[in-house]
Amino acid sequence: MAPQATEPAPIGATDNLSIARAARLWPIEEIAHQLGLPGEAVEPYGRGIAKLDLSAMKALNGHPRGRYVVVTSMTPTPPGEGKTTTAIGLVQGLQRLGHTATVALRQPSMGPTLGLKGGATGGGYSQVLPMERINLHLTGDLHAVGAAHNLLSAMVDNHLHHRLSPELDPREIYWQRVIDLNDRALRHIVLGLGGRGDGVARQGSFEITAASEVMAVLALADSLADLRQRLGRLVVGLDREGEAVTAEQIGAAGAMTVLLKEALKPNLLQTLEHAPALIHAGPFGNIAHGNSSIIADYIGLSTSDFLITEAGFGADMGAERFFNIKCRASGLTPDAAVVVVTVRALKYHSGRHAVVAGQPLPASLLAEHPEEIYEGGANLLKQIDNVRAHGLNPVVAINAFPGDHPSEYAAIRDLAASVSVRAEVSTHVRDGGGGSQALAEAVAEAAEGEKDFRFLYSDELPLASKIERIATRIYGAEGVDFAPQAHERLNVWQRQGYGSLPVCIAKTHLSLSSDPTRLGAPAGWRLPVREVRLSAGAGFVYALAGDIRTMPGFSTSPAATRIDIDESGETVNLY
Amino acid sequence: MAPQATEPAPIGATDNLSIARAARLWPIEEIAHQLGLPGEAVEPYGRGIAKLDLSAMKALNGHPRGRYVVVTSMTPTPPGEGKTTTAIGLVQGLQRLGHTATVALRQPSMGPTLGLKGGATGGGYSQVLPMERINLHLTGDLHAVGAAHNLLSAMVDNHLHHRLSPELDPREIYWQRVIDLNDRALRHIVLGLGGRGDGVARQGSFEITAASEVMAVLALADSLADLRQRLGRLVVGLDREGEAVTAEQIGAAGAMTVLLKEALKPNLLQTLEHAPALIHAGPFGNIAHGNSSIIADYIGLSTSDFLITEAGFGADMGAERFFNIKCRASGLTPDAAVVVVTVRALKYHSGRHAVVAGQPLPASLLAEHPEEIYEGGANLLKQIDNVRAHGLNPVVAINAFPGDHPSEYAAIRDLAASVSVRAEVSTHVRDGGGGSQALAEAVAEAAEGEKDFRFLYSDELPLASKIERIATRIYGAEGVDFAPQAHERLNVWQRQGYGSLPVCIAKTHLSLSSDPTRLGAPAGWRLPVREVRLSAGAGFVYALAGDIRTMPGFSTSPAATRIDIDESGETVNLY
Repeated sequence: MAPQATEPAPIGATDNLSIARAARLWPIEEIAHQLGLPGEAVEPYGRGIAKLDLSAMKALNGHPRGRYVVVTSMTPTPPGEGKTTTAIGLVQGLQRLGHTATVALRQPSMGPTLGLKGGATGGGYSQVLPMERINLHLTGDLHAVGAAHNLLSAMVDNHLHHRLSPELDPREIYWQRVIDLNDRALRHIVLGLGGRGDGVARQGSFEITAASEVMAVLALADSLADLRQRLGRLVVGLDREGEAVTAEQIGAAGAMTVLLKEALKPNLLQTLEHAPALIHAGPFGNIAHGNSSIIADYIGLSTSDFLITEAGFGADMGAERFFNIKCRASGLTPDAAVVVVTVRALKYHSGRHAVVAGQPLPASLLAEHPEEIYEGGANLLKQIDNVRAHGLNPVVAINAFPGDHPSEYAAIRDLAASVSVRAEVSTHVRDGGGGSQALAEAVAEAAEGEKDFRFLYSDELPLASKIERIATRIYGAEGVDFAPQAHERLNVWQRQGYGSLPVCIAKTHLSLSSDPTRLGAPAGWRLPVREVRLSAGAGFVYALAGDIRTMPGFSTSPAATRIDIDESGETVNLY
Repeated sequence: MAPQATEPAPIGATDNLSIARAARLWPIEEIAHQLGLPGEAVEPYGRGIAKLDLSAMKALNGHPRGRYVVVTSMTPTPPGEGKTTTAIGLVQGLQRLGHTATVALRQPSMGPTLGLKGGATGGGYSQVLPMERINLHLTGDLHAVGAAHNLLSAMVDNHLHHRLSPELDPREIYWQRVIDLNDRALRHIVLGLGGRGDGVARQGSFEITAASEVMAVLALADSLADLRQRLGRLVVGLDREGEAVTAEQIGAAGAMTVLLKEALKPNLLQTLEHAPALIHAGPFGNIAHGNSSIIADYIGLSTSDFLITEAGFGADMGAERFFNIKCRASGLTPDAAVVVVTVRALKYHSGRHAVVAGQPLPASLLAEHPEEIYEGGANLLKQIDNVRAHGLNPVVAINAFPGDHPSEYAAIRDLAASVSVRAEVSTHVRDGGGGSQALAEAVAEAAEGEKDFRFLYSDELPLASKIERIATRIYGAEGVDFAPQAHERLNVWQRQGYGSLPVCIAKTHLSLSSDPTRLGAPAGWRLPVREVRLSAGAGFVYALAGDIRTMPGFSTSPAATRIDIDESGETVNLY
C-alpha cells in the first residue's frame, strides 16, 4: 500500500468543458418526441432547450406511471460526492439497458456560479447540455422568481408608504428582497431613506434568489391554480394589531402568478447521451426543501419508465424533505433510493483527514487505507438507515474517482452487505452510461422489489414533535433544545391552524449533527433550535439549527474575474 | 361646432386585448424565412418569438441595404401620441404597398407595466404579438442587463470589502444597483451594515433597469467584441487618488459580457399583419439615448426594403439622440423621418387645456376647434425644424382618434404645407395597415427623395459647446447656464480625452424647454445644467437639466393589484 504523493489527475473542469464542446446535441424536439410529448406542448427556447407546456401533463393522463427514484448521499465532504453526475449517469445507464429514463434536477444559482464553484450540470461523460445556458440564465426562471419576489417586496413598501389597509408595522416586516448574486453588502441595509416621497425608513435585507420562498412555492406547486393559491398565502409581516398580513391582502399574488407563468413550465434538455433532462426550480437545501419541481417529476413519470431525481445534501437533509415535504405535497411515492458514496468521503468520515472546499485533497486521503472505510462507515450505515426509516431499501452507488483502490471498493461492498444493501461501483464520469450499467441494474431491481413507503411523521403530530422526530430518528440526536421564543411560536402556529404542516430543519449539511466538525454518526448531542419561521406559501415550518447564510459573498478572487470571451467570442472559464 | 360632453370610445385597452387574443400568429420561422434569414441564425424562444444569432449579420453582408426611417413626434402630452402604433402601422402599410418592411422597437420596462400604464406593444390593429411575453420577461434581456449591472455592483463592494487594488474611495462610488420594478424605498439606502464580514457601510441607491448604462451599452454595441470593450470602459467610481476606476480594473467586464451574450441577439416577433418586428434593448429616453439597438437596425436594413424605428419622446429628445448618438455609433444614415402628431396634442399645446396622465381627457379638448391647432402649431413647426436641422425633410403622421374632426385635420395639413411638409392621416389603430397606406406612400417617397443627412455638431466641438448647440438650435433656448461644478467637470473630461463624445441632455419630455408647463415653442429662456455625468461605456456625456427620476414609485392602486389569472389560467388586466 504505497502512499501516493499527489492526487492522480481526475476528469476535471477543463475536460468537462472540452467534452461538452465536442458533443453534438440532438434537436430538442426529437428528445420530446421520444417521450411521446405532443408537439404543441413543446416550446423551444434556444438551441437544445424547450419549455414544456403544462398541457403536457393533461395530455399524458392515463399513461403508465414510471418508477420514481431519488438520488441522495452519505454526509458529503465540502466539495460534494457527485449526486448530480450519478443521477445523470444513472439515466444513461438505464437507457443503455433499454429503459426510457428521465433525470430531474435543480437549476443552479447564478451567484455561486460566478463566485466559487462553477455550475451544476454534472461532469465528464455524465453532463447535461448546453452547459453555458444552464449555468447562467437558462430560460429565465430564476429571474422570474426574483421579479415576483421583489414585486411583492416593492408592493409591501408601497403599502407602508401610502398607509394602505391593513396597516403594516414597519418593525414586523419579514418579507425581504432577493438577488441572484453573491452580494454581502446587501445582507443588512436601511431602505426608505431620502424624503417624504421616498418610502418609510426601516431595516431590510437581500437574500440570494434560491432562498426565496417563491422558489420553494414554484417547486411545490402542482398546477397554475395551486401556484396562485400558495402565493396568496405568503406571509409578509404583521399589522399594527399583530395579525399576519399575506400577499393576497397586499394584492400582489395575482401579478406574481402572471410573472411566474412561463417559469412554471419545466425546462427540457438532454444529457451527453441524449437522455431527457428536466431542469426546473432550485430551492435552497437548508431553509427550504432542496428538491427540483413536482411538475417536472409528474411529466417525467408520465413519459418514462424511470424518473431519477436528486435531493440536495445528504440523506438526512434532502432525502428526508423529499420524502416528507415533496412527496407529501405531490402524492407521489418513490420506488427506490440511491445513496451516493465516494471512497474519499468514507475515509474523511474516519476523522483522520482535513478537506477544504476549493483546495486539493490531502495526499493522506488518497493513499490505500481500506480500514478507514470501516472507520467512516458509521455515517453510511446511518444514512442507509435514514432511507429505510421511510420504507425503502436503498442501493449504494460508489462514485468512482481515478485514485480509488479496489480494496476500498471491496470494503464499501462489505459494509453495505452487512446491512443487506447492494453497492455498485459507477464510472459514469469517465465512461458515461456504459460505466453505470451495474448501478442501473441494481436500481431497476430495487424499484421492482418490495417496499413500503411511509412518511416519518403524520400530519397530526404537533410541530415541535415533528422536529423532535426528525432530530432523534434521522440525525441521531438525543433530543431538541428549543429557544423559549421558538417553542412559543410553534405553539402559536399550532393554534392558528398551521400545525398540520411538515417541517424543514436548517442545519449544516456537513454532519449528521448540527456541528459541521462532527463526522461519522455523532452520538450524545442535542439539536439546538434557536428560531422557527413559517413558510405558509410553500407549506412548511422551518427551524434554524445553525448559522445559515442566505446571502453568500465573493472571495478576493471570484470566478467572475476569470470568466470572459475569447477572440472568437467563445466563453472561457465558465464551468 | 357642437362641443362634445364626453370622449367618444376610442379603441381602448380591452379592445387591444381582445384583438390580440383573436389574432393567429404565424410560426416565427416563417417570418424569419421571409426576411431571407438563414435557418441556423434563428433560435425560437417560445411561441412566436425567436432570437437572431449575430451570424445573421455576417450572412447578410453584401445584400442590398434598405431605407432607414425614424419615427419621432411633436412634444407629447402626458399619455403620449402613439409613435409606437404609428411605427407598427407604417410597416403594415408599407407591406400592403408591396414592400418588405421591419419595425424595430424598444423592449418595455416591466416596472411601469406593473405600475401605471400597461405595456408598449402598440394598440388596436397595430400591435406586436405576443403581448403578454413582450410586456413581461420577453426573452430575459432586461433581466440579463440587470444581472450584468448588479454583478459589477457586487464586485465593486467586494473590491471595497477586501481592499483590493486600486483601492476605491467609498464616498466616490457612482455605480449603483438596478431592479426592473417601481420601488421607491430603494432610491436611497445604506448598505454594508452588519458586522465586519458584511461589507463596508456606505450610501447607495437602486435605479430602474432601463436606466442602467449597461442597457445603453447593449443598445449601442455593434458586435460582441464591441460590447466587451464598452463594458470594460464603464466607470464605477474613483480611487483614493481621485482617479477613475473602470469595470475592467474591477475584473467584471468579461463575466458581464458572458451574461449578456444571449441578450445581444435581437428578438424577432411579428405584428398583427405578420410584418417582422425586432424588439431589442430599452434604454431610458432622458439620461440615455432612448433608442432600440443598433444590431436590430443592421439586421432589419439588411433584410428589408424599409427599417422603421421609433425614437423616444419628441423630436428634440429621441430623434436628436437618434441622429447624433445612435447614427454616430452605427455609421448608418437615415433616409426619412416621421413626426407623429395628434389633434389633441396640437390643441393641448395651445395652452387652453389641462391633460393629466391616467385621467380622462377634458371635454373641452375634444370639441371642434381648428383654430387651436394653429395656436398649438408652433410646437409642430419647431419639431419639423429640428428634424430639418439634420438634413431630412420629415413627413407628418396624424395619428387618428375617434373624436377627431375633419376641419382639424385640414388645419394640420395646412400648417405642414406652410413649411412644405406632407401630412397624412393614419387610421392604423382602427384599420391596421389599410389605414396607413397614404402615410406609407409619403414615407416611401420621402425616403427615395433628396436628403443631406448631417450631424448637429462635430466630434471636435467641445462638450460644453455641444450642449449649447443642442439647447439653442433644437430646444430654442437663448443659452445654457452651467452650474460651476458642471462646467468644471466638462473641462476635466475634455482634458482626459472624453471631449469627442456626443452629449445627451436629460430634461423633461413634456416641453421643448426645461419647464414641463411651458407648451408650444417657448422662447426667452435658458437651459440650466446642474450636473453632468460620464457614460464612458455607452459613449456619451449626459447633462441633467431637470429633476429626472430614475426610480419610479407605485401609486396607491398599481396595475399589479389587478393583474391576475382567471379560472382558465388566462392572464387578465395586463395590457
